[in-house]
Amino acid sequence: MAEIDDIRDEGDAFHDECGVFGIFGKPDAAAVVALGLHALQHRGQEAAGIVSYDGHQFFTERHVGLIGDTFTKSSVMERLRGDRAIGHTRYSTTGDDGIRNVQPLFAELAGGGFAIAHNGNITNALTLQRTLQKRGAIFSSTSDTETILHLVATSEKQRLADKFIDGLKQLEGAYSFVGLSQKKMIGARDPLGIRPLVLGDLDGAFILASETCALDIIGARFVRDIRPGEVVVITAKGVESHFPFECPSPRFCIFEYVYFARPDSVLEGRNVYAARKRIGEELALEAPVEADLVIPVPDSGVPAAIGFSQGAKLPFELGIIRNHYVGRTFIQPTDSIRHMGVKLKHNANKALIEGKRIVLVDDSIVRGTTSQKIVQMMREAGAAEVHMRIASPPTISSCFYGVDTPETSKLLAHRMSVAEMADYIRVDSLAFLSMDGLYRAVGESARDDARPQFCDACFTGDYPTELTDLDATDNVRTLSLLANNG
Amino acid sequence: MAEIDDIRDEGDAFHDECGVFGIFGKPDAAAVVALGLHALQHRGQEAAGIVSYDGHQFFTERHVGLIGDTFTKSSVMERLRGDRAIGHTRYSTTGDDGIRNVQPLFAELAGGGFAIAHNGNITNALTLQRTLQKRGAIFSSTSDTETILHLVATSEKQRLADKFIDGLKQLEGAYSFVGLSQKKMIGARDPLGIRPLVLGDLDGAFILASETCALDIIGARFVRDIRPGEVVVITAKGVESHFPFECPSPRFCIFEYVYFARPDSVLEGRNVYAARKRIGEELALEAPVEADLVIPVPDSGVPAAIGFSQGAKLPFELGIIRNHYVGRTFIQPTDSIRHMGVKLKHNANKALIEGKRIVLVDDSIVRGTTSQKIVQMMREAGAAEVHMRIASPPTISSCFYGVDTPETSKLLAHRMSVAEMADYIRVDSLAFLSMDGLYRAVGESARDDARPQFCDACFTGDYPTELTDLDATDNVRTLSLLANNG
Amino acid sequence: MAEIDDIRDEGDAFHDECGVFGIFGKPDAAAVVALGLHALQHRGQEAAGIVSYDGHQFFTERHVGLIGDTFTKSSVMERLRGDRAIGHTRYSTTGDDGIRNVQPLFAELAGGGFAIAHNGNITNALTLQRTLQKRGAIFSSTSDTETILHLVATSEKQRLADKFIDGLKQLEGAYSFVGLSQKKMIGARDPLGIRPLVLGDLDGAFILASETCALDIIGARFVRDIRPGEVVVITAKGVESHFPFECPSPRFCIFEYVYFARPDSVLEGRNVYAARKRIGEELALEAPVEADLVIPVPDSGVPAAIGFSQGAKLPFELGIIRNHYVGRTFIQPTDSIRHMGVKLKHNANKALIEGKRIVLVDDSIVRGTTSQKIVQMMREAGAAEVHMRIASPPTISSCFYGVDTPETSKLLAHRMSVAEMADYIRVDSLAFLSMDGLYRAVGESARDDARPQFCDACFTGDYPTELTDLDATDNVRTLSLLANNG
Amino acid sequence: MAEIDDIRDEGDAFHDECGVFGIFGKPDAAAVVALGLHALQHRGQEAAGIVSYDGHQFFTERHVGLIGDTFTKSSVMERLRGDRAIGHTRYSTTGDDGIRNVQPLFAELAGGGFAIAHNGNITNALTLQRTLQKRGAIFSSTSDTETILHLVATSEKQRLADKFIDGLKQLEGAYSFVGLSQKKMIGARDPLGIRPLVLGDLDGAFILASETCALDIIGARFVRDIRPGEVVVITAKGVESHFPFECPSPRFCIFEYVYFARPDSVLEGRNVYAARKRIGEELALEAPVEADLVIPVPDSGVPAAIGFSQGAKLPFELGIIRNHYVGRTFIQPTDSIRHMGVKLKHNANKALIEGKRIVLVDDSIVRGTTSQKIVQMMREAGAAEVHMRIASPPTISSCFYGVDTPETSKLLAHRMSVAEMADYIRVDSLAFLSMDGLYRAVGESARDDARPQFCDACFTGDYPTELTDLDATDNVRTLSLLANNG
Repeated sequence: MAEIDDIRDEGDAFHDECGVFGIFGKPDAAAVVALGLHALQHRGQEAAGIVSYDGHQFFTERHVGLIGDTFTKSSVMERLRGDRAIGHTRYSTTGDDGIRNVQPLFAELAGGGFAIAHNGNITNALTLQRTLQKRGAIFSSTSDTETILHLVATSEKQRLADKFIDGLKQLEGAYSFVGLSQKKMIGARDPLGIRPLVLGDLDGAFILASETCALDIIGARFVRDIRPGEVVVITAKGVESHFPFECPSPRFCIFEYVYFARPDSVLEGRNVYAARKRIGEELALEAPVEADLVIPVPDSGVPAAIGFSQGAKLPFELGIIRNHYVGRTFIQPTDSIRHMGVKLKHNANKALIEGKRIVLVDDSIVRGTTSQKIVQMMREAGAAEVHMRIASPPTISSCFYGVDTPETSKLLAHRMSVAEMADYIRVDSLAFLSMDGLYRAVGESARDDARPQFCDACFTGDYPTELTDLDATDNVRTLSLLANNG
Repeated sequence: MAEIDDIRDEGDAFHDECGVFGIFGKPDAAAVVALGLHALQHRGQEAAGIVSYDGHQFFTERHVGLIGDTFTKSSVMERLRGDRAIGHTRYSTTGDDGIRNVQPLFAELAGGGFAIAHNGNITNALTLQRTLQKRGAIFSSTSDTETILHLVATSEKQRLADKFIDGLKQLEGAYSFVGLSQKKMIGARDPLGIRPLVLGDLDGAFILASETCALDIIGARFVRDIRPGEVVVITAKGVESHFPFECPSPRFCIFEYVYFARPDSVLEGRNVYAARKRIGEELALEAPVEADLVIPVPDSGVPAAIGFSQGAKLPFELGIIRNHYVGRTFIQPTDSIRHMGVKLKHNANKALIEGKRIVLVDDSIVRGTTSQKIVQMMREAGAAEVHMRIASPPTISSCFYGVDTPETSKLLAHRMSVAEMADYIRVDSLAFLSMDGLYRAVGESARDDARPQFCDACFTGDYPTELTDLDATDNVRTLSLLANNG
Repeated sequence: MAEIDDIRDEGDAFHDECGVFGIFGKPDAAAVVALGLHALQHRGQEAAGIVSYDGHQFFTERHVGLIGDTFTKSSVMERLRGDRAIGHTRYSTTGDDGIRNVQPLFAELAGGGFAIAHNGNITNALTLQRTLQKRGAIFSSTSDTETILHLVATSEKQRLADKFIDGLKQLEGAYSFVGLSQKKMIGARDPLGIRPLVLGDLDGAFILASETCALDIIGARFVRDIRPGEVVVITAKGVESHFPFECPSPRFCIFEYVYFARPDSVLEGRNVYAARKRIGEELALEAPVEADLVIPVPDSGVPAAIGFSQGAKLPFELGIIRNHYVGRTFIQPTDSIRHMGVKLKHNANKALIEGKRIVLVDDSIVRGTTSQKIVQMMREAGAAEVHMRIASPPTISSCFYGVDTPETSKLLAHRMSVAEMADYIRVDSLAFLSMDGLYRAVGESARDDARPQFCDACFTGDYPTELTDLDATDNVRTLSLLANNG
Repeated sequence: MAEIDDIRDEGDAFHDECGVFGIFGKPDAAAVVALGLHALQHRGQEAAGIVSYDGHQFFTERHVGLIGDTFTKSSVMERLRGDRAIGHTRYSTTGDDGIRNVQPLFAELAGGGFAIAHNGNITNALTLQRTLQKRGAIFSSTSDTETILHLVATSEKQRLADKFIDGLKQLEGAYSFVGLSQKKMIGARDPLGIRPLVLGDLDGAFILASETCALDIIGARFVRDIRPGEVVVITAKGVESHFPFECPSPRFCIFEYVYFARPDSVLEGRNVYAARKRIGEELALEAPVEADLVIPVPDSGVPAAIGFSQGAKLPFELGIIRNHYVGRTFIQPTDSIRHMGVKLKHNANKALIEGKRIVLVDDSIVRGTTSQKIVQMMREAGAAEVHMRIASPPTISSCFYGVDTPETSKLLAHRMSVAEMADYIRVDSLAFLSMDGLYRAVGESARDDARPQFCDACFTGDYPTELTDLDATDNVRTLSLLANNG
């Protein structure tokens, strides 16, 4: 979930989810969007943008930095006039032209302006881009999101919604789109529904958002999830729903429950916090341990640790104390104090831990470097035994659907067995949740291997869509570079 | 504890504690001090300063902002040469000349340079200042800390330590000082030991720090608490201890255990986290309640809530979810979305709360405005009953010992009975910990009203020192203004 | 010429010329470009950009601010790797997306990357843009320069130079382009040669620049002017020259000599300083006056005033003293001191002026507001008589070739006769240079009304090209908005 | 005069003059002070401060940067309430605590607040400081100006004016002070009147300022120069004048006429521009030369060059063209283009110079490095002969009266004869103005060696005051460090 406060090192975490939000028919729409994006920053907080329309003109603001620092200046917000607006918040951008990749992207098409924001990743974007360039298209970003703009611009359909659907039909991968034209707000989810998108209602104004927590912050009502493969067209008249694709069974990203989504969100009918607690309970059943205390790895491990504690009847305790005032960067200026690592952000609660057998609960292991440091910190604080329980199966494959995963070869679980990992991070015991345990925690009896109910490619390598660019280039980096639209 | 991440509004919290840190005899001393101050920022994070000495020259850097943003720039740290350094981190400063009040203060005295950093408040500083000005002294700050500098400068004693003690003898109030001259580091605690100060050791270099968590971050060993009324003089030869005062019984600030200190610190022999958990357990005994869930008010209520949950055998649950990416300020730009209040930082975990009887555990009530909002948030999320349990007695009096309390008249418990307060914040029941319960939680059998074991003036109005400036001016504001050195 | 130091108010001056510079085949090419742009900032200093290519990759940096503030940071310059680079410096940009309009513009075309920088204005850009959008083109700026990129991208020619020429053939207006592809640097001047472009040579590396002063700063040799209608293609092999257009007689902008170009530049064979001095001499002949002193209106009036002084045998004196430390903006904070106007930047040298008959020499009159203030300042300083001599004919028409002129209706000379203007600015006498006098000063015997030797549309309304967008929209503003690429 | 626009390198110029300004009895006094300081920035433009008083409270703002950037923000100016205010503008400050040395300095004395601003240098400040420190005084700056504050604070006189005079009597050196108490504005000039200070009047409000150009910018009337050794006390009742010292003959700084003061100022009855022109005329008489053109070294050499041109009947021409857009710093980022030196700011007007015999006129030679570069630039532009004429005698001694001169040993004229200097800077001929020629230019018949009419120590080494600190320490650096209050 969280980067700033999380104990993980930057290189030892999953990133690059994005958040989208739009509202249609509410005065001061951009201010509402800013709040919605603010609540979605756990999905990416490095840059954000808003496009609004006031009946005459589109207004665009895109900034690097936290919403609370950038989209609260009156100079910025006063420019974003109008009663409809969409926004996007994202993980990293680099270089001075990085701002080009901040969404929503906007284009003045022959039929009028069109803005679009995207969460996911198009797995044939590079292939499409090359085709479009051959026809004379000029790309102004390196974002895969721009592909859909060009497909809309060059579609021979008449109406915008048809042009948009025409474009979607050429896309592969995972996407939740929110678009804004002069008269419509459009939402779309890929046929498998990999990324979330929900519909809300604030005093009659319709909202599209990545998660329900963005509805809560503005006091909006949750209406329903947008369905896999659904395209909604929102106008003053209401919501019009289209299902232009043949939809296979849905494959919602199961990792949203494990780590990405905010605990207070409800996605596809499941409360994330409750799911994480059940994960912890399953883990206590599957991998019990004789111990004195259950300690969460802050902050994302807390719900699973509470579940584990309740399942195992062991006390839940704060064994790792967060230093609240970390600031954005603590660059160690001198050699003698480099490599302070996790200590800058967290400290062992030594008086609690000393002489105790502890169970650390974390949501996942990426490279394992943070786990090593935490375990060492616990040992230095005098823990008698350190057991680690992971609230998901081992992550063995990269994600190509909007998450910035380290290369497969750097994933610890790709390189080692569970026993080797236990050795590497120096714990007395290590256990991961089983695949079926995870499926049980989210309400299924087990994984249906013939027709899996979720996208779990990061745990299985079983990718539910074509990976055209990857096959074409045989180059994961290229795909990733293109994928940095969240 | 924490301002940034805390659910409290800025005006509805206690502030203005400061943190001090010094080290003597370690290469790159300033870098160590920066880390120590970083760990002490829960005591004040708005501005900080470091003074170092390299055997030839003193170097001073004072900046507004988080340590991690200011004292990590190589341009800053390279200037702070030397193997001894002291630092200070503090709450607010205002105005363009605010930097004048950032400590350590430094003066070139006739006998050489002297720097000083202070946590506490001198209750006769204004009176002393007027006397000194009549003799021609020029004050360059509005900080009460400067008083001690002038007393040292004008003392007729020969040796610096004697001049310093000479000055201390004229002071009333609460103080923990760390000072640095060309040859010595000096530490001092007021005769009642109201504010904490601990001695540590890092590979033979002695350290003075407000709390033990600042020793942990640098891997230093905790040696002992500096004793009430003790003056320590640290040189290359070691630690020399003086007790120049007649010391009455100690009166350590009991609120450090309730709220100020970091949970992982050990102060006066007690681990803060453990004390808070015991507070929660006492509270569960004193004020039990039929309920489904125990929910902490984040973040400072968490340890007491865990204690309450364990004491009451009720499940501990995260009912309030923090928005991790708050940024420093979220200024609502338009009228229509003002007064979002706590929602910007936190959200109710509705799926968990709906239909449940909940116990909210918080550490204290200041003005009550935040409590009102949290209770309302719980009710909107569908809580069947909302009970509130406060992990301290009612706060009825201002602090004049280094904490920026709202005026007494604005403290909710000063104006209302417990029943009225319950009504005001709209809970089904409200209970505070009893005074004896609090004393039990920190290891005493009860409060000894004849010779109280702690300073508990904020709960009792029983101030253990003279309040000369207050009596002279009958003006709390004057005292507070002067008091802003933390 | 100069905005920052010039006595003119911002609204009472001509702006919006741009400067272009490129070098091919020199290590650290971008650093050379930065210096070249630095010398061209009198043509526009509000924003600048550089694109370089290192044999593998293009690098782009575009920043708002002075070259000396932005393109001197090592963090910026280290990114601009390669031995070939082009740059652009421009007048104003507005809005947060203003950076989109900072040049060079860059596009990844099917055949590889292509960057372009432009000085001038395309008078049919809007019309072309609409046509291109209908075919599905997406514009990412509001700059007319982007038009040529799309024309190149959609050209059906094979080679880049041919595509570029194909695009140029569709353009109307004034342009000096510098472009960079993976293998070539391309330069082009419109068929009338309205804007300048020169070829230079630095140790064998070829340079294209708006003016020769940009060659001087880097110690480069001036080779020749690029010819009207010429397209040069520069590769490792040398300079290849094309003349794809039927070229009518050249019409170089005569106002470059009057005001825009830097005095030390040599354009089309004429030294600008010498031309301005001859203008002053012609003016002394045409409009002599009995007076004691000749005073230049700083800074652009100085060369003409020296010429006038020498021609009229009257002493040249500094009657207006510049305040050197103006800073970028002096916003008067209170009503009581608003409207200080020219006094913030300049002051009358009262001791010199008192009781004297003075001749003020300025290059042109735009709205007349600055002239009014200067005359008033001279009278307040005690001048016995104030005569004004203008080193050009009255400016009566807007420029559509890359200069941001106030609307025609706001030009003083469009609204008033010379006698009325004299009255308006309150001088004892006023005279403008005659058209033939101006032509004589630049070496012609007189203006050839049948085939004028220069573009002098601002003085005559005789526009040498089509003004398609203007005719289509009948809307000067639209044209100007589109024209903001300098 | 000017640093930013001047052709000189930073290390090859005189610096460190300061400017002072105060006004008493004018609403919005601070805004008037800001304008006055703005006009005085040629005396020091790196930092500035203003202190105002509104009848109840003093307000202080001190900032690094140009007045036009710092004292024009409404946030700053709104804080500076009141109808009386004083200000100071100064050359460099260094270190993070540099702001401590920005004036006016302010102290809350026993009798009320007192602020002071200073132009000059106290030559026994260090000696006084040591005495004061022994008595317990704490200095909060390293500025010699603070000395007078402590002398006032410890004076046993009753009235502020008497305390101030009491303090002045202990000072040696050069000073022009402006002070502000609750009821009075005080001005003082040292007995020799080395630095300037003038009295002005704006609609009945009295003004003290370093030069008359600061009166002009606000439209104030010049009343008279403050006299050497005079102390003026300004209250609502008017100006009260005291002459507490025995005054020897005045010794006004003659270098103010050569370089420091602004050309439009009138000091001690002489217009600076006129004096400089006469200097040029004397120089033409004393050191004539066969040549084609007279070229000023911009900008400070211009008036003398005009005088030389008129005296020698040779044409005045702009042979060096300024690049107007230098920005504050142009840091050359790469080795290959370092050492561009003067070319970044100025360029030879080659077309004018080629084949000509030129006379360069400059005001002085400091280290000679800039002269070398200019001469080389002229030769590269093809000058047939280069003659240099300097509008002052050779500078051979450091200034201890408020000007930051390079150490004596680095002054070219201290190390070399005129012939050697001519050789060093590679000119065909070099001549300096004679001492008597300089005195003639400012209206004397010759220097009276028995009782010189001016301070000319920089040309003669004849210091008119004691140099106690210098004698005590034998250390010019110490004195200079202390001297950095301008």
